[in-house]
Amino acid sequence: MEGVAIIGAGQTTYGDFPNKGIKELFAEAYFEMVQSVDYGFEPQMLHSAYIGSLSTGSGFQLGQMAPLLMGHVGLPHVNAVRIENACASGGFAIYNAACAIASGKFDLVLAAGVEKMRDVSSNKGRYWLGVSGDTEYERLAGSTFAGIYALMAARYMHEYGLKREHLSMVAIKNHRHAVANPKAQFRKAITMEQALNGVPVAHPFNVWDCSPTSDGAAAVLLCRAGMAKNFTSKPVYLRGFGAASDYLAIHDRDSITSLAATSKASAEAYKQAGIGPRDIDFAEVHDCFTIAEILAYGDLGFCEQGRAQYLLEEGITQLGGKLPVNASGGLKAKGHPIGATGCGMACEIFKQLRDEAKEDTRQIKNARLALSHNVGGSGGTAAVFIYERGGQ
Amino acid sequence: MEGVAIIGAGQTTYGDFPNKGIKELFAEAYFEMVQSVDYGFEPQMLHSAYIGSLSTGSGFQLGQMAPLLMGHVGLPHVNAVRIENACASGGFAIYNAACAIASGKFDLVLAAGVEKMRDVSSNKGRYWLGVSGDTEYERLAGSTFAGIYALMAARYMHEYGLKREHLSMVAIKNHRHAVANPKAQFRKAITMEQALNGVPVAHPFNVWDCSPTSDGAAAVLLCRAGMAKNFTSKPVYLRGFGAASDYLAIHDRDSITSLAATSKASAEAYKQAGIGPRDIDFAEVHDCFTIAEILAYGDLGFCEQGRAQYLLEEGITQLGGKLPVNASGGLKAKGHPIGATGCGMACEIFKQLRDEAKEDTRQIKNARLALSHNVGGSGGTAAVFIYERGGQ
Repeated sequence: MEGVAIIGAGQTTYGDFPNKGIKELFAEAYFEMVQSVDYGFEPQMLHSAYIGSLSTGSGFQLGQMAPLLMGHVGLPHVNAVRIENACASGGFAIYNAACAIASGKFDLVLAAGVEKMRDVSSNKGRYWLGVSGDTEYERLAGSTFAGIYALMAARYMHEYGLKREHLSMVAIKNHRHAVANPKAQFRKAITMEQALNGVPVAHPFNVWDCSPTSDGAAAVLLCRAGMAKNFTSKPVYLRGFGAASDYLAIHDRDSITSLAATSKASAEAYKQAGIGPRDIDFAEVHDCFTIAEILAYGDLGFCEQGRAQYLLEEGITQLGGKLPVNASGGLKAKGHPIGATGCGMACEIFKQLRDEAKEDTRQIKNARLALSHNVGGSGGTAAVFIYERGGQ
Repeated sequence: MEGVAIIGAGQTTYGDFPNKGIKELFAEAYFEMVQSVDYGFEPQMLHSAYIGSLSTGSGFQLGQMAPLLMGHVGLPHVNAVRIENACASGGFAIYNAACAIASGKFDLVLAAGVEKMRDVSSNKGRYWLGVSGDTEYERLAGSTFAGIYALMAARYMHEYGLKREHLSMVAIKNHRHAVANPKAQFRKAITMEQALNGVPVAHPFNVWDCSPTSDGAAAVLLCRAGMAKNFTSKPVYLRGFGAASDYLAIHDRDSITSLAATSKASAEAYKQAGIGPRDIDFAEVHDCFTIAEILAYGDLGFCEQGRAQYLLEEGITQLGGKLPVNASGGLKAKGHPIGATGCGMACEIFKQLRDEAKEDTRQIKNARLALSHNVGGSGGTAAVFIYERGGQ
């Protein structure tokens, strides 16, 4: 199997951009990616493009958006395809781009994601996001994603003694991290008092437990590992990639304090990379709600199941800790433009492993191995990636 | 690169099934596929599933349908992902399943497609199908797919002297072929008089030039070529697979009497297979409108550009001719459940190359190499596959 490297990455700032459509957002991320390649790359070298997006909401481009977007950046004839697994669409775009490289059929493949969420009305937005749960048993019965994750949080509290404050510790940490990230939607630190007293959303969540709706795009350039040095002296190698699914409806699952898709996907990625959770220096994980980051700690093996709160209490997952998680600010504060999220995580890790996240205190020093983790809906799908710093 | 084989295939009848939802349709195709594997296969062996669907229409499962469907057939944890390129979604599902096998990461991968179109109202249906054209320049300006392909037909007539009767010859041929296909939506032969005098749709098309809306699903099981004989003595090998894109809006293209995506995709597939168009014994091509089959003849190299009408006049592409095209009845008469179509073509070829299309006069004798061709929208994407009969 061919090895896979990342040689370029770009993304928009995440936020509210009423004057930018999906074409403009995508182009901004794409051209930043092109600029990020150190030398030797011409866009005409691209063979394929995997573009993640949910975008089933309002009057956007709903079918064949992948070739539309590639045509917009001057590459109408590449093999372009849309990948959709709800909030994990970007992660699955990278996963399939990596498979395409690994097959030996292609040298250079784009993985990207884009979403335009801010001009969907909140009623329609709720409906729209709900489409990634089980339509028959959840959405049409009135459940929302906040409601489903709130059930998981309540159960985790019941089983493992998680406190309301632990949820807030995730929000506070990720908001603090985002302050140093110029691409983040919310560059604003919050206090425990604020984090505990936000507008209620779904018990035990208040608004500070929930990631925002966001506009944004992200793009990553993958190539055969053996040719990475043709384009940069600082490639980032994709050492492992895993993906798995689960029942969409949470009533079908064995447990709701763990996402089986994450466990299975990370086992595949660790195995391929030949490492374990203890080898990871930092991670970007899927914190669409505060409880989601807590579940990820256990499911990725960062702690024993049910003991995530201790990582938070001991500051292990904050910047400066032993295993920083979501140095970018995470979905919670960096933002969560559905299809872009998984690719945006790879952009963050690409910068960090090349020592290019210089702003303020955000750069993680001396890191060699990183992990990203992208979840679809309430755990219906998950994709996990392991990255290694290349030679300098 | 690992070789790829097809060892199982199943599909529903295409048609109007008010009592079957996407889960039921998918399960029917999936279990027929499982039954079709001669020996040695257990569903738990599956690692990944690529499921093509557009389904952005009414109140269906709009996000993460892939894991939902896999959960429904008892395989909730496989790596399942939805692939969307409009009417080419099924073809791109096979393409990416083949890349996944070729990467050496997996042994057994499912490619499938499903669509439920018949309970979308015709107004909403027109809107819905239009989403795969360019939203800004085509759909919101009022164009329909029939209208866009009608422009291509008019231009082909102008440039190359195609007659209205040639369009009808495609419809008559494919309707006649479908009579012998128990999976076809319309098993009804039509006369030239009927074909010329249908209800007008968009000049020069009448209703007989247009494929129907259909419910249906199809599923194909791919494996590493080297292990195909563990499951069957009659594998079908996937010798080449190519995919490409084009501008969505036809005003951006150099020509509208040719689909550049088809030419590029077929060049890739022929090159990988090490053969040319003259080696193909029969084909399933994308005849969403009668002109689409005519364009395909030139773009796939079955004739010189602009001379497709002579293949029809000489009966070369009818059953019994030198190069039968759409022995299944094609999209025109077999039916066109968007996401399923590309996979359904592979099902037909799998049966033909195993001498299992016994009904009536439909079995093509002594064929070794076949081709399938699946187009997204009005040519925004295309995927082409070349199949070879395995040992008996």
